[in-house]
Amino acid sequence: MTQSNPSPKLVSIADIEAEANRLMEPSIRSYLNYGVLSGETLRANVDAFKWLRIRPRYMVDVSKRNLSVSVIGGDTIPMPIAVSPSGLHKRFHPDGEFATGKAVRQKGTVMIVSIASTVAIEELAAAEPDLIKWLQMFIYRDRNMTIDLALRAKQSGFRALVLTVDYNARGLRYHNIKSGYKTAHKMANYESYNISKDVAKDTNWQDIRWLKETTGLPVVIKGIVTAEDARLAVDNGADAILVSNHGGRQLDGSPATLEALPEIVEAVGREVDVYMDGGVRTGADVFKALAIGAKVVFVGRPVCWGLVCNGSNGVKQVLDILNNELDNYMTIAGTPTVGDITRNHVRYVNDYHN
Amino acid sequence: MTQSNPSPKLVSIADIEAEANRLMEPSIRSYLNYGVLSGETLRANVDAFKWLRIRPRYMVDVSKRNLSVSVIGGDTIPMPIAVSPSGLHKRFHPDGEFATGKAVRQKGTVMIVSIASTVAIEELAAAEPDLIKWLQMFIYRDRNMTIDLALRAKQSGFRALVLTVDYNARGLRYHNIKSGYKTAHKMANYESYNISKDVAKDTNWQDIRWLKETTGLPVVIKGIVTAEDARLAVDNGADAILVSNHGGRQLDGSPATLEALPEIVEAVGREVDVYMDGGVRTGADVFKALAIGAKVVFVGRPVCWGLVCNGSNGVKQVLDILNNELDNYMTIAGTPTVGDITRNHVRYVNDYHN
Amino acid sequence: MTQSNPSPKLVSIADIEAEANRLMEPSIRSYLNYGVLSGETLRANVDAFKWLRIRPRYMVDVSKRNLSVSVIGGDTIPMPIAVSPSGLHKRFHPDGEFATGKAVRQKGTVMIVSIASTVAIEELAAAEPDLIKWLQMFIYRDRNMTIDLALRAKQSGFRALVLTVDYNARGLRYHNIKSGYKTAHKMANYESYNISKDVAKDTNWQDIRWLKETTGLPVVIKGIVTAEDARLAVDNGADAILVSNHGGRQLDGSPATLEALPEIVEAVGREVDVYMDGGVRTGADVFKALAIGAKVVFVGRPVCWGLVCNGSNGVKQVLDILNNELDNYMTIAGTPTVGDITRNHVRYVNDYHN
Amino acid sequence: MTQSNPSPKLVSIADIEAEANRLMEPSIRSYLNYGVLSGETLRANVDAFKWLRIRPRYMVDVSKRNLSVSVIGGDTIPMPIAVSPSGLHKRFHPDGEFATGKAVRQKGTVMIVSIASTVAIEELAAAEPDLIKWLQMFIYRDRNMTIDLALRAKQSGFRALVLTVDYNARGLRYHNIKSGYKTAHKMANYESYNISKDVAKDTNWQDIRWLKETTGLPVVIKGIVTAEDARLAVDNGADAILVSNHGGRQLDGSPATLEALPEIVEAVGREVDVYMDGGVRTGADVFKALAIGAKVVFVGRPVCWGLVCNGSNGVKQVLDILNNELDNYMTIAGTPTVGDITRNHVRYVNDYHN
Repeated sequence: MTQSNPSPKLVSIADIEAEANRLMEPSIRSYLNYGVLSGETLRANVDAFKWLRIRPRYMVDVSKRNLSVSVIGGDTIPMPIAVSPSGLHKRFHPDGEFATGKAVRQKGTVMIVSIASTVAIEELAAAEPDLIKWLQMFIYRDRNMTIDLALRAKQSGFRALVLTVDYNARGLRYHNIKSGYKTAHKMANYESYNISKDVAKDTNWQDIRWLKETTGLPVVIKGIVTAEDARLAVDNGADAILVSNHGGRQLDGSPATLEALPEIVEAVGREVDVYMDGGVRTGADVFKALAIGAKVVFVGRPVCWGLVCNGSNGVKQVLDILNNELDNYMTIAGTPTVGDITRNHVRYVNDYHN
Repeated sequence: MTQSNPSPKLVSIADIEAEANRLMEPSIRSYLNYGVLSGETLRANVDAFKWLRIRPRYMVDVSKRNLSVSVIGGDTIPMPIAVSPSGLHKRFHPDGEFATGKAVRQKGTVMIVSIASTVAIEELAAAEPDLIKWLQMFIYRDRNMTIDLALRAKQSGFRALVLTVDYNARGLRYHNIKSGYKTAHKMANYESYNISKDVAKDTNWQDIRWLKETTGLPVVIKGIVTAEDARLAVDNGADAILVSNHGGRQLDGSPATLEALPEIVEAVGREVDVYMDGGVRTGADVFKALAIGAKVVFVGRPVCWGLVCNGSNGVKQVLDILNNELDNYMTIAGTPTVGDITRNHVRYVNDYHN
Repeated sequence: MTQSNPSPKLVSIADIEAEANRLMEPSIRSYLNYGVLSGETLRANVDAFKWLRIRPRYMVDVSKRNLSVSVIGGDTIPMPIAVSPSGLHKRFHPDGEFATGKAVRQKGTVMIVSIASTVAIEELAAAEPDLIKWLQMFIYRDRNMTIDLALRAKQSGFRALVLTVDYNARGLRYHNIKSGYKTAHKMANYESYNISKDVAKDTNWQDIRWLKETTGLPVVIKGIVTAEDARLAVDNGADAILVSNHGGRQLDGSPATLEALPEIVEAVGREVDVYMDGGVRTGADVFKALAIGAKVVFVGRPVCWGLVCNGSNGVKQVLDILNNELDNYMTIAGTPTVGDITRNHVRYVNDYHN
Repeated sequence: MTQSNPSPKLVSIADIEAEANRLMEPSIRSYLNYGVLSGETLRANVDAFKWLRIRPRYMVDVSKRNLSVSVIGGDTIPMPIAVSPSGLHKRFHPDGEFATGKAVRQKGTVMIVSIASTVAIEELAAAEPDLIKWLQMFIYRDRNMTIDLALRAKQSGFRALVLTVDYNARGLRYHNIKSGYKTAHKMANYESYNISKDVAKDTNWQDIRWLKETTGLPVVIKGIVTAEDARLAVDNGADAILVSNHGGRQLDGSPATLEALPEIVEAVGREVDVYMDGGVRTGADVFKALAIGAKVVFVGRPVCWGLVCNGSNGVKQVLDILNNELDNYMTIAGTPTVGDITRNHVRYVNDYHN
């Protein structure tokens, strides 16, 4: 496994976060880093990892490791780490999604492209034809635009749709009001439509089957944090669940994603892939999420911090660091392949104190 | 739903609290904000909400929301948020209870008027005939004055009595001794009586039935924090329970109201309305209390902070913010009506960490 | 109940603690306030009270309260609050144990006189014949001196012996080495003996029966923090157990006394009185300890702080504050007598969060 | 028991730690004191002791104490405290392992000599023939060198091998990159080999039996933190388990050693000795580990701090302090011999709060 060498100064995601925070204009920084309301779920996403201990197993032959996993759409990626959607990448670097896509393609993993990208579906596909792309989108009040966007992605070689279900109203982002946040960047994918882009409030679970059958693409449901919803999603045709709370940006007080993961894995993990994002900052975090049952872990903010620091190279460095750290953990913990990491490799801290 | 626009600067209850604290004279500020003794229950009221996670449910039709609930006395209010009693509003704004009453009437919800108001029962009723008013009062050593006060309220169109049961001695408010707190404002309702206004120490549960039958008004019992007392109250004629610990101002060490709520809902929630106050600062808090089983959530200090900042408009802004936040939560969490919010929409944080 | 008026400035034990700390010479202050080693048990004693909530019960006739309790030796005291032993009171005030004894006699409660007092048994008895005195002592390597001391106390009208069992070696008081602590004050009771005053290391439970039968005085065992030892003590003749960890000054890491109390009450509470000391700073603390099953709560450091601030009057103020606070709690919580306070009046915080 | 007198200024391990930190060059200090990644396991090692309370038992004859225990290899040591391996002692004091060995020999306990020592096996054996020495080592990719090193130790009178199993890849020591840490000191034991010293990644449990049978020395397995691995180690010939997480320097997020200890004692404690290291700073910590079931507690960083402060005398002082503290605890807690300390002498804090 060839990996680019991390810069001598920025050696961890925490370093890159600190450097990005130093570089960003304050209102962009608060836009990116804050959650909503009291910020409880934002912090819980990160803190939830501290509630789990890793149980390493020794004297295992780990001379050959294989970090690759298969994902929906028939692709195999060389590590169980991929990129979650975030909007308007040109806010973070002039190259925007071109930079992100280039780094993700170099690493061979998945980029979930936000519908709110500053580079249009077709432009990104033209620049990065070999990138594994999934399109994050919504069910809009206008069902025709919904289908049109999905079919544009299919036409451009996107391999799956990622349907965000936790955004029928915008979260209470008071910090943006206070910071005076605004951006001149446009959402490129919407430019061809002269209609409302409002997200639908009148959805139901049958919409999943409708979207899937109309487009012929696999559909990942993003935003679910309960077993009940996971069950309903799968019963209505979902090909995978991406456990997420929108990075703590929608409903403050909802569970950390690592908290919600167990009940969802229990409910549907034998039937479909369960992915997760939220609070992942190290390879140790990735290892814990895999042990609980996530198939792939997605990262959002770290990618944006990488963009701010060094464009495409910065994103690649973020992915390299996480890859290196996970490889180190799998070597020491005695799990040479992702499939070797089991629920028994983690234990709750509380269970040690009784 | 038409709602007044919150001021651009003060967007949350936390902002209004901070601004009020900046404006208040120190001894008034400590009077209002402190609890008793070590302040443990005061803090617990706020912190208890952090022990619960919200479990949002997605892909639900929330295009039409209805936040209204019915309350005792036959009224329906447009949101499950109302105003708890607090004394001497003229300390907080020259318009006193007139300001509070006007804002509450504009929002269409309930104002529990403190017996210790700076505006007399009859004056407030004359100024705000359409306001839904309940009178907070005590069982006094003088039973005749007790009945007289209640009948004055009935005469003035008050819809219910709210009997405070946790005040037979005054809590240990050492901070008032230290701050030199005193006020020139008079309790207007007592001015016609030349006798002791001492609260009775020789009460028993039959007093509820006596008060109710003598006045013909529904009686809410305020201050209960145990299932046992809730059971006794209902068995003796209580029409509703308002779970409260007097804002942490009476018995430091008693449970947070959100802690006490479950056992009380379990004990009597199928028979009578259970209300609560204490520590509510956001719509997320309201959502959690409703999920545990509160029918309506009352707010005290936030109303006083609103009064300090901007009189009647400030109170209205407080109620607007909570209303907006709850509506946002109900939209995102998939609960278009108050009745859709169930016990299953919350889970204790601790249950996620085992 | 007539009670002296607390000073307007020092209204709580916390105030008196702060004032005493301001007044004491640093090495005395560290001697008094610190525990041993890491100070874990010292802090736990205070913090343990925060793990319990009080469940007040309302609409109870509390017009007449009675805080009195009976104790071993046939005495009745007007409140369940008494004075734990601490050594060398002349370090804290020139009047030493004369000052303490006067205040305790005025309050009518029990003073456990430390064997390490600066005023001899006979002197204190002569000055305060009406004071209810118990003598704290040890089993010494010299059994004759042990009996001689006990008989001197009996001769002087002491009502009971309090045998400290957790001091066969001195705790690791590194802070005294660092502060250069030393004192010119003498332990008055030992002055007549020209032999080693070493505490015995070769004790067994039969020593209790021997001490009791030889002296004819009731014996309280002080220092026990386990159910097993409580059982053995009672089986060997102990008349009462004083749950104590020597104020966190002996074995750092041993349980807070409020933590140890439940298992001891469960083991022997139906047979003998169970007393406790450690970390009590408010009437709320007293209430919680009584609810768990303590018959009387003893205070040590607060008495010393009172001595430092104002000699005998300072001690009396400490006892008045605790008495007032407990009376306030019993009034509000609906428990007019000490016997009305039950295990059901408290609940662990953790039990509210699951 | 004759013990050297601790210096008047440095009376606790905490004092020696602070003094060493003052004296060390920053990059050495960060090398020694930090863990890996987020430092979670490093802190957990120390904090885990706070989760346990000690339950002292009184009125026991403790006039004669015996702290000695037997260890593998047929030796008896005068206290259940010994020295864990750490590399390159000349970084901490010019006398390096000669200083450490001298102090440990004076105390009569075990020194686990790191394979990465700055003094060669044979040199140390020549200087300290009476020191009880065990050799910490690895299974190397080169199996011949593995055996050669072990046989050199046997030849030099080492009594056992300590096989580290948690180091097949180096932990993520970002702090060393940032501090620019490097050292001119050489690992003396490797100087005779012109081949890779890489630790093997292709190990399995049969390697234990191979090493043991090839060398004829008892083998302690160091680094295990799960019951499953302990079971496998013993089934494959391990003579003892040293529960360790490499001082938090390898896999951040793995359990604190005191957390892992109970499941390992439960699994194999009736068959082989279970030792532990990690976070031990006081005799109270030693007592707790023994109560959970450790036979001997090893200390690493405290020995290095002692070396920095005062060479061999500093190491001896560290061991004296721990010995004194443990003796004090055994005296007060009523456990005159190590065998008297049982699981019943500790209880989890959490169990006191429900």
